[in-house]
Amino acid sequence: MEEKIKWDERGLVPVVAQDYKTKDVLMVAYMNEEAYNLTLKTGKAHYYSRSRKKIWLKGEESGHTQEIKSIFIDCDNDTILIMVDQKVAACHTGFRSCFYRIWDKGWRVVGEKIFDAKKVYGDTKGTE
Amino acid sequence: MEEKIKWDERGLVPVVAQDYKTKDVLMVAYMNEEAYNLTLKTGKAHYYSRSRKKIWLKGEESGHTQEIKSIFIDCDNDTILIMVDQKVAACHTGFRSCFYRIWDKGWRVVGEKIFDAKKVYGDTKGTE
Repeated sequence: MEEKIKWDERGLVPVVAQDYKTKDVLMVAYMNEEAYNLTLKTGKAHYYSRSRKKIWLKGEESGHTQEIKSIFIDCDNDTILIMVDQKVAACHTGFRSCFYRIWDKGWRVVGEKIFDAKKVYGDTKGTE
Repeated sequence: MEEKIKWDERGLVPVVAQDYKTKDVLMVAYMNEEAYNLTLKTGKAHYYSRSRKKIWLKGEESGHTQEIKSIFIDCDNDTILIMVDQKVAACHTGFRSCFYRIWDKGWRVVGEKIFDAKKVYGDTKGTE
């Protein structure tokens, strides 16, 4: 089903997750072929963690899953864009989007905190 | 200025370019530190081509430049999001966005052709 995807030398492609309603870019993570197939099969975004070297269901711990609305591929077949219905927030830090800091002679926080990460995770952790 | 960016083992970060008006995701490419600094300095997106192993000004051949409106960084400091004013189209194939195909039991073209790639480039070429 994904015969056209060009997996890189690590067997991965970068995936941009975009809010299907607001069109905000929520996060960028990676899928391998198994994560991609699980995403198609379940309708929920699965990624491959490069640091933990394993597949993860986005929201498996927090409940902040991403329901797939549509999937796009780029001209080079090496990047995926998914439009998702994001439950609560995409970022493990408590922001709706992982891109909550803007360049303004330094990185300045402009996003809004949606939840308290310590209450959800016990302690902060990386998305990967 | 970019002391917080985590460059990967190749010295690169993935960069998502988003239309600052429509919020469409236009393309994903890579920057190294030099391309990032040139982008900040000139206000026009510069990328690093992994295949050609050189910096390129987006639009240097086609004139389809990307004027930087704002720059965001993600929670892990390893991905950049730029909001841009895209001249004409981002994709070398003639589509406004590189993500012009949607998954529908196969990749189906849904984007609209903005220009004739053969007239602009003489022949088709990759974005990298």
